[in-house]
Amino acid sequence: MRNLRSAWNELADTLVDTVRAAQGEAIDPALPDAAAERVRAQMRECLAGTGGEVSARARAAALGRTYLSLDPGGRERFLRILAVEFDCDRAAVDAAVVQLNAATGPEERRGAEARLRRALEAPRRRLLTQFNALPEGVKFLVDMRAELLELSADDPSLAALESDLKGLLAAWFDIGFLELKRIGWDSSAAVLEKLIEYEAVHEIRGWDDLRNRLDSDRRCFAFFHPRMPNEPLIFVEVALTDGLAGNIQALLDPHAPLGDPRKANTAIFYSISNAQKGLGGISFGGFLIKRVVDELASEFDRLTNFATLSPIPGFRQWLTRQWSVDETQILNAADRRALADAAGVESGALAALLAREDWHRDPALSEVLRRPVMRLCARYLMQDKRDDGRASDPVANFHLSNGARMEQLNWLADTARKGIAQSAGLMINYLYRVEDIPRNHEAYVGNGEIPASAAMRALIKS
Amino acid sequence: MRNLRSAWNELADTLVDTVRAAQGEAIDPALPDAAAERVRAQMRECLAGTGGEVSARARAAALGRTYLSLDPGGRERFLRILAVEFDCDRAAVDAAVVQLNAATGPEERRGAEARLRRALEAPRRRLLTQFNALPEGVKFLVDMRAELLELSADDPSLAALESDLKGLLAAWFDIGFLELKRIGWDSSAAVLEKLIEYEAVHEIRGWDDLRNRLDSDRRCFAFFHPRMPNEPLIFVEVALTDGLAGNIQALLDPHAPLGDPRKANTAIFYSISNAQKGLGGISFGGFLIKRVVDELASEFDRLTNFATLSPIPGFRQWLTRQWSVDETQILNAADRRALADAAGVESGALAALLAREDWHRDPALSEVLRRPVMRLCARYLMQDKRDDGRASDPVANFHLSNGARMEQLNWLADTARKGIAQSAGLMINYLYRVEDIPRNHEAYVGNGEIPASAAMRALIKS
Amino acid sequence: MRNLRSAWNELADTLVDTVRAAQGEAIDPALPDAAAERVRAQMRECLAGTGGEVSARARAAALGRTYLSLDPGGRERFLRILAVEFDCDRAAVDAAVVQLNAATGPEERRGAEARLRRALEAPRRRLLTQFNALPEGVKFLVDMRAELLELSADDPSLAALESDLKGLLAAWFDIGFLELKRIGWDSSAAVLEKLIEYEAVHEIRGWDDLRNRLDSDRRCFAFFHPRMPNEPLIFVEVALTDGLAGNIQALLDPHAPLGDPRKANTAIFYSISNAQKGLGGISFGGFLIKRVVDELASEFDRLTNFATLSPIPGFRQWLTRQWSVDETQILNAADRRALADAAGVESGALAALLAREDWHRDPALSEVLRRPVMRLCARYLMQDKRDDGRASDPVANFHLSNGARMEQLNWLADTARKGIAQSAGLMINYLYRVEDIPRNHEAYVGNGEIPASAAMRALIKS
Amino acid sequence: MRNLRSAWNELADTLVDTVRAAQGEAIDPALPDAAAERVRAQMRECLAGTGGEVSARARAAALGRTYLSLDPGGRERFLRILAVEFDCDRAAVDAAVVQLNAATGPEERRGAEARLRRALEAPRRRLLTQFNALPEGVKFLVDMRAELLELSADDPSLAALESDLKGLLAAWFDIGFLELKRIGWDSSAAVLEKLIEYEAVHEIRGWDDLRNRLDSDRRCFAFFHPRMPNEPLIFVEVALTDGLAGNIQALLDPHAPLGDPRKANTAIFYSISNAQKGLGGISFGGFLIKRVVDELASEFDRLTNFATLSPIPGFRQWLTRQWSVDETQILNAADRRALADAAGVESGALAALLAREDWHRDPALSEVLRRPVMRLCARYLMQDKRDDGRASDPVANFHLSNGARMEQLNWLADTARKGIAQSAGLMINYLYRVEDIPRNHEAYVGNGEIPASAAMRALIKS
Repeated sequence: MRNLRSAWNELADTLVDTVRAAQGEAIDPALPDAAAERVRAQMRECLAGTGGEVSARARAAALGRTYLSLDPGGRERFLRILAVEFDCDRAAVDAAVVQLNAATGPEERRGAEARLRRALEAPRRRLLTQFNALPEGVKFLVDMRAELLELSADDPSLAALESDLKGLLAAWFDIGFLELKRIGWDSSAAVLEKLIEYEAVHEIRGWDDLRNRLDSDRRCFAFFHPRMPNEPLIFVEVALTDGLAGNIQALLDPHAPLGDPRKANTAIFYSISNAQKGLGGISFGGFLIKRVVDELASEFDRLTNFATLSPIPGFRQWLTRQWSVDETQILNAADRRALADAAGVESGALAALLAREDWHRDPALSEVLRRPVMRLCARYLMQDKRDDGRASDPVANFHLSNGARMEQLNWLADTARKGIAQSAGLMINYLYRVEDIPRNHEAYVGNGEIPASAAMRALIKS
Repeated sequence: MRNLRSAWNELADTLVDTVRAAQGEAIDPALPDAAAERVRAQMRECLAGTGGEVSARARAAALGRTYLSLDPGGRERFLRILAVEFDCDRAAVDAAVVQLNAATGPEERRGAEARLRRALEAPRRRLLTQFNALPEGVKFLVDMRAELLELSADDPSLAALESDLKGLLAAWFDIGFLELKRIGWDSSAAVLEKLIEYEAVHEIRGWDDLRNRLDSDRRCFAFFHPRMPNEPLIFVEVALTDGLAGNIQALLDPHAPLGDPRKANTAIFYSISNAQKGLGGISFGGFLIKRVVDELASEFDRLTNFATLSPIPGFRQWLTRQWSVDETQILNAADRRALADAAGVESGALAALLAREDWHRDPALSEVLRRPVMRLCARYLMQDKRDDGRASDPVANFHLSNGARMEQLNWLADTARKGIAQSAGLMINYLYRVEDIPRNHEAYVGNGEIPASAAMRALIKS
Repeated sequence: MRNLRSAWNELADTLVDTVRAAQGEAIDPALPDAAAERVRAQMRECLAGTGGEVSARARAAALGRTYLSLDPGGRERFLRILAVEFDCDRAAVDAAVVQLNAATGPEERRGAEARLRRALEAPRRRLLTQFNALPEGVKFLVDMRAELLELSADDPSLAALESDLKGLLAAWFDIGFLELKRIGWDSSAAVLEKLIEYEAVHEIRGWDDLRNRLDSDRRCFAFFHPRMPNEPLIFVEVALTDGLAGNIQALLDPHAPLGDPRKANTAIFYSISNAQKGLGGISFGGFLIKRVVDELASEFDRLTNFATLSPIPGFRQWLTRQWSVDETQILNAADRRALADAAGVESGALAALLAREDWHRDPALSEVLRRPVMRLCARYLMQDKRDDGRASDPVANFHLSNGARMEQLNWLADTARKGIAQSAGLMINYLYRVEDIPRNHEAYVGNGEIPASAAMRALIKS
Repeated sequence: MRNLRSAWNELADTLVDTVRAAQGEAIDPALPDAAAERVRAQMRECLAGTGGEVSARARAAALGRTYLSLDPGGRERFLRILAVEFDCDRAAVDAAVVQLNAATGPEERRGAEARLRRALEAPRRRLLTQFNALPEGVKFLVDMRAELLELSADDPSLAALESDLKGLLAAWFDIGFLELKRIGWDSSAAVLEKLIEYEAVHEIRGWDDLRNRLDSDRRCFAFFHPRMPNEPLIFVEVALTDGLAGNIQALLDPHAPLGDPRKANTAIFYSISNAQKGLGGISFGGFLIKRVVDELASEFDRLTNFATLSPIPGFRQWLTRQWSVDETQILNAADRRALADAAGVESGALAALLAREDWHRDPALSEVLRRPVMRLCARYLMQDKRDDGRASDPVANFHLSNGARMEQLNWLADTARKGIAQSAGLMINYLYRVEDIPRNHEAYVGNGEIPASAAMRALIKS
């Protein structure tokens, strides 16, 4: 059985060429009124379905290419036309509502509901589906949604279009359709360069750094979609270590000796990156972690711990808000004393010290800061909540929702500029214990409880 | 990059085992009241999402397995529970309708519509999506729909569930996700046995017959879905010939000499079978033909004709209806005379002759029948219309909708029992001329015109 | 990185066409003198290498196709020309021998040896290598050797050619180049039909029988060569059972309930077939067993026994030779008595009883035969040796050489016609215990000792 | 049919571990006498075959790993032991020679030859084959030969071992076993980094340069062997251009606009690199070019010219030898005058000018040099021959042997340091015209004629 390459895409190519030839001259990228009128007409034709389903698809593909040729302003106009002019037919909706109100008996009611449902389905949604006919059609729609997400923040008229597109993508990117793949040095360069591009947590500094992260004591896994074969959707980088790793620079050091993965007892998930902005709000992170834990457990018998080494992105901002209110509220007397001595000022000592460039390179200073900063961070992580009772730190919220618990806070764990700026160099290990995952999840999502190790809990009390 | 096998499926397996263990004893296949109560509770739990998304999926998978273990009566109860008890919340719908009616300004209206849309989305639809977590989840849903289609014919309360499922499947089986594959003797036995099972037009009589149909002067193509890798969705069998083939037995004769495909000028599509009942109403036949034409054209330079050799399934039934009214209406005097002489009766001669067993083996008799029967068949094909103006013969409607034209009617073209019974042994070639496809489609779908060759048109007039 | 299919083969095709066109009319299949002269000339041209290496290969490919077009007599003439006329140059050999004899000092000697080695290399060997350029070139040479093996039995002038070819194939089919693959219902029909064709031990009676042998409680493995992707070289069929299986009909019964392979503790290798006659004398059977044991052990944790259920092909013939000498020598008095009573004759009772059609269907008779026949068979297996001290039963010799031991003799284990005829229905289990393999091999190959279970040893003594 | 990964390799791993455990402590990398004694014993054991073929292989694999653990001196000792102590048995050879001399009649003679052939087969050759059992065994032997080639240059006692190994590799790397693959950006990083490492003509300066060479208007093809899947054996880089390309820096410029390959009429083979030193003397370059020409011709209809852009590695050295004899011999009066004026010296002007750093950046100077240097280079290429009548320039010899002709000499075609140093910046296009290849090959190899374009021939005469 031979797989005929890019089946549909090639069909689309041929047809698009035909359609294009028939459409005459190119569209102005800024989409001025005259051009907009032509685009509008094309949209209507796609929906009319004249010439058969195959031709309709080809027309949609040509329309998609027009979109790609537009400049930002032109795209916004294009999207607004789609959102507003191809919305559902209000008269039809109102008529269906009238019918619903008049329905008697369950059968009639059910029929009226079905009709109303259909009336509420905007034509733009059908048009969006047809863009799938573009070569790389799924990626096209994902990228279009990324643009829509930005635009719709300021323009509510685009929100309904964005919502239609999200619904479509959510169906297509159902977890059941995703493929977990291991990425390694034997993966294609076309995929590997995407890792370099998309890594969002600890920047990959070129091919040598990448190769080091794919060495025999490391693993990298990603979810892929069959229609976007070279595009990871979300990926996780894992180090196989002996015991919990508490320092990211040590973990990423290319000169560190190669570990023997067969002897490792711990898998450290040190970076998880969503790769597609256009899939925002469609979550598969929890599934990825669960699946990778299973893969690793089946490959390596000795692995018993599955933990992250995670950033704490919101800590320093929170801290700044705290001391801007009143530093005395957040520090006990002993700490205030020690900090003041070190800073040479009576008030605002903590802020002053953390403002010093390279404070973390001064061992004595770092020692003074250690206790109060770690305690404050533990408080931030475990006690600072959003209105809905969830942890306000987004990374904490992600892992706790997935059933992890807070395990260990690490001092001077990320001394890169970004790590110092975001979290005063602190990082945290979240621990995934397979048997505890449902209970942790329930406790957190149901009751807002934050599962944590004894050590973490002790930090707050101290 | 290594593809980790059946990623999600294995996860599902593990989780299902866990869930199953927790669920206690097995469900009674007939789903009596107590068992139904337990199933109802499970459905609610799936939707509640307690324990996290991963666990919810596992629970849905377990529920899906329960379904598979039920007997027909049990399944019907299961589906009815799902359809009726997990329908949308009427109070919520009514409230949303009130809001809609009260909305002023486009923004408010748009928001109200969105809320109403959400209110109309039945929980059962979300539950259906979750069944995707079953190993072979997509196939499970396709088969469930096949069962639903049968049940809902007699039970309108199931129709809305069927409609939800159709919507889901239509999104997943969008043409953009289908893969065209060539099937040959180097395909897996697991796929090939499906051809034997699913062939709906000219029965495949075992592995030798199959092998003959996959020989070097034949081609077979199918659409597949990435999540059902061993299941063809629709497949077409093609013979590469010199000129239009007009006899199916000759075409399928295992003792016929092997043709040289490089010298063929014609591709005969002699069998197209939909393989999945559960995808009924979700069409990709037109795309298949277009794609296969492209594949063949790019493989073989000399191919210039693309045509079918098709059954005419409704002809004999139609004919019976005709003569039961009045035979004189449908036959001219000369034909009536000749038929009466041959039959030895004055009235009802055509019916009498066609009722004779093996009339087609008697050359003289066959010659008498030829002219009148072919003329009547041409009339059936080209003039018998449904209320919507389409051809009443379903195969004709399929090919005309795809842009083909009627090319040639063939006498004694299918002398198998079924061919004689259905169409008095007649078959027809529909011709696909790439450049005429859109125009033909338009003429037929838009205006109910039936494109046909001069020879076909002449048949009627004669 | 895309694999450009059948790289060399396509090149060969093109070139062969060119060469063929230049060669003029076709060769007479019987290869009469004039045709033989043309073939001779072609052979010389191939070796001359005019037109470059690429053209020389093409010429060899054309010559190979000529061979394929010949009838049996023509092929024999072709091979004899190759064997005799393209042998090494005797004058050159003699000259090299003179140089060798004159050589003084190790360097000179070494040089002279190298020259002599080259002089002894027959041009026909180089020509054989060039046939590799044929599409399916390796299979061509394997099949050519199968023919040579038959012909050379009666014609020693062909033996040297056969030996050259064996040397070539032995290098190409080195175990390091073979790929172990699992064959299942998801294998291609093109491979599966080879199993049906090549199965040499227990005939496969069609696709249903085959499917049963590939079910989930069965395994089938084969060695393949990269250049013969659809041709198994040797394959083994395995049943996963609970305890040693002692009856082949029960094992192959399509109506037997499906076992759960996860619960099996024993892997029964019930059929091992060499598929390529042309690879005779190039052994990889031992490697296959070792590799399959490893595969199974890694797939199924509970497997602890690896054993065969093997035929005893030489037993009945041996038995006939024994009693034709003197039956009293091979039976003790009690057995003689019982057999005589059952047969109703005083002498030749064993022969008489075993000559009765369907003796094995008569329980009483079978019971009388059981003890003496099993004892005799054990004696045959363990005590009948070839001149080189190996077991004379070929299957026994194969497994003992591979390090197995004789484990259990099974009465009425194969009641198919062939089983009754060859071995009076007896079959034996050879047991492979991974830790004993080297010792068993050594004992057998080094000292002619036959490792056997206590039960087997007891059988002889009884 | 599932391919069980690295079949034999895994077996080897297991067995090697067993053997290693039994061998006791590790071998000293310098291989002093005691260690050498142990190695010698291991070699004997491998050949003795005790414990069965499987164990023998495992022992050879362990021995191979020992080799890998040795330092250069240790390896040399290891190889010398193998070469000298496992040479053929002289007494046996002498006895076979005596038998040969005594043989009467063709049958006896043939038998005696066969025995002599066997006697001349050194045991070391069999041992080399067994190393194939190492994981990566083929690559191991290729690399071992690379080392042997260096060592045997100074040590004739190793030459026979090297020759045995060459014979083995020549059989395994027969062109029939090689796979042509296209390499692109979708190839694995593991393969791509080999290109960077092995490129021998125009250095690849990192991943960006590589990516540029794999862009849509470029092609890269390589031969691979099934047992060395990540190791190209030889690869060629091709640019698709409009007309002959005459400047390598322009061709490799990453900022040059991307060409449209569909419109190109010329394929420029601008770099061909042998990747495996250990396969020296086993040629497949000619096949690669022929195959790539076919691939490109079938992908792109418009391609009509297939040519190289090649270095002229021996030109400057030859030129220096020429003028060191007598500059007046190689230059005509007019050129001598112009050069002397430019250099400001009467004699040795050409040498003086070419010795100036950056002469090629001075347009006036470059113009003075152009005519005489191009004429001299044409003379070098077309008239400077080796003793066997072949062109002395190695690149010229390669392409002429493959049937190309000299087409066009290009001034300032390679102004990189190496290009200036080797060939005064000149490069040449060799043209492959499919229909002329056999004739060109014949003319060159048979008669030492150098096929060249009219322009090239005119250059000499001028």
